[in-house]
Amino acid sequence: MSRSAQLVERILQGDRRAAARAISLLENHAPEARAIAEGLAGHRGKSFRVGITGPPGAGKSTLVDGLARELRKRDRTVGVVAVDPSSPFSGGALLGDRVRMGRALEDPGVFVRSMASRGTMGGLARSAQEAADVLDALGKDWVILETVGVGQSELAVAAACDVTVVVLVPEAGGAVQAMKAGLMEIADLFVVNKSDRPGADEMLAQLRETAHYLDREGWKVPILKVIAIQEQGLEALLDRLESYHAWLQEGERLEEKRLRQAALRIRDLVRARLEERLWLDPEVDAVVQENARHVLAGQLAVHQAAINVWGTVRERLTELEGI
Amino acid sequence: MSRSAQLVERILQGDRRAAARAISLLENHAPEARAIAEGLAGHRGKSFRVGITGPPGAGKSTLVDGLARELRKRDRTVGVVAVDPSSPFSGGALLGDRVRMGRALEDPGVFVRSMASRGTMGGLARSAQEAADVLDALGKDWVILETVGVGQSELAVAAACDVTVVVLVPEAGGAVQAMKAGLMEIADLFVVNKSDRPGADEMLAQLRETAHYLDREGWKVPILKVIAIQEQGLEALLDRLESYHAWLQEGERLEEKRLRQAALRIRDLVRARLEERLWLDPEVDAVVQENARHVLAGQLAVHQAAINVWGTVRERLTELEGI
Repeated sequence: MSRSAQLVERILQGDRRAAARAISLLENHAPEARAIAEGLAGHRGKSFRVGITGPPGAGKSTLVDGLARELRKRDRTVGVVAVDPSSPFSGGALLGDRVRMGRALEDPGVFVRSMASRGTMGGLARSAQEAADVLDALGKDWVILETVGVGQSELAVAAACDVTVVVLVPEAGGAVQAMKAGLMEIADLFVVNKSDRPGADEMLAQLRETAHYLDREGWKVPILKVIAIQEQGLEALLDRLESYHAWLQEGERLEEKRLRQAALRIRDLVRARLEERLWLDPEVDAVVQENARHVLAGQLAVHQAAINVWGTVRERLTELEGI
Repeated sequence: MSRSAQLVERILQGDRRAAARAISLLENHAPEARAIAEGLAGHRGKSFRVGITGPPGAGKSTLVDGLARELRKRDRTVGVVAVDPSSPFSGGALLGDRVRMGRALEDPGVFVRSMASRGTMGGLARSAQEAADVLDALGKDWVILETVGVGQSELAVAAACDVTVVVLVPEAGGAVQAMKAGLMEIADLFVVNKSDRPGADEMLAQLRETAHYLDREGWKVPILKVIAIQEQGLEALLDRLESYHAWLQEGERLEEKRLRQAALRIRDLVRARLEERLWLDPEVDAVVQENARHVLAGQLAVHQAAINVWGTVRERLTELEGI
């Protein structure tokens, strides 16, 4: 049995250290990564994947910590993938962010994995999903992906889950900011955290108005008030998430949602490989540079330059054997 | 003379209405768009392009308004492309955002054009740059691109300028948030607006520490205090921008920076066309869907599915005649 196959075997038996090792190998694109991914392929899809996102300072980590403990009370095992650089889970300490360790961490039924979001632009969503695949194979009932709602790759992490929770806090213009950041488009459920703060009711009203226009194929996007630090509203939140899970499992909703996401993952991977091959190719790059000089000299419009580059790109693509 | 050529001719003579019309045609990918872009190609590169970005609520629009008036005092003509949905220039009124019209708008030496940022994902940076090309040909000395610093395409607008100004306001964790949003990476100059607020000095200290590590090929990233609403610090800001402009013009810095940006624009356009052709192709889509089903069924790892799709992609690409 190969080392990769042994590692997969240990993950399937619930070995946490094997899971941690596999996630690292996948994240670092180690030579074993492909064999591990292939070994895990048959063991996906059992976990309920919950994406939790929102602006910095919304209290996502406290919420995830509380949710994990609430899940444990209901005898569910939990995996957490935290890609928020300010998360206590990811140990992020940017410019003095304090590291608070969640209480859920002390529970062996909770597996927490952190990922750095900086420096892995584009690859972040891929790595986070691969980590979730590992925790899925490890047998976690729920896998929570926590990510800060700033930047497209971070949003992609949350959007690629079975359910996407958007966490906001009452503040002037908070709903508008969320809209600008693209958070409205991906929310299946809104949480207004720190809802004892002034402005909570205005925010709820704004969100209700907005949620009214969101089309989720019949799912009415709920808006829940929570005070995560005081553990208020967490049970109700969990109840709603369970309802959503049940709703998804009616008919083919879950399968169709996951099918769309699998198609996205495939396209994303083809796109990423194509990009790597294309723009790092010295021949293509020489043509790009030459055309850029012509654009700068005023001899070419950008789209004419693109047409010129396209010729070379097409030639080079046909010479590539695989990806 | 064709209608496109006439339009270009009128722009070169300083006709504002012709400029407005050309921007609309380019933005809407009208049939005349290519001919207009080709007509303008020889008339780019004279304006100094300033990208101004920052989080929602940082006071960018007030700053741009003040900067435009300050530039007029120095007898420079100004074009503004505003892609911030909350900008008074773009007339954005999301969920009750108030529309304040800037005073600079009343000056015929200032041309202001707004763009909606929602719904043009990815194409936003292209459209904004094409609008800037038009204002360049129109003869504006400075072209300011104002964009909210949330989302990759918005950041791309600001990053594709000769100089990128990042505007922040004193608030707890503001510097950390800016770092997470990727604003640090693109800043050539920081402005702390509303600098009479508490926390301004802490923010300045944090930014100084961060700016220390930014590599701008010898340019020391300045951090300026401004109170845009009271017109405080705008002269000093303009002086610094002029210094940066002078610094860029030493040796080949400006040309090299613009060459890199032209190469980015070309690659971006090839990529966009490639994507359109690729994923909307029914043959490719059928293969993607089939492979997604296998992934879901646990028969395939995502990267194996991507390899399968790649075969079809390559075939289809070689059949495409142009872009």
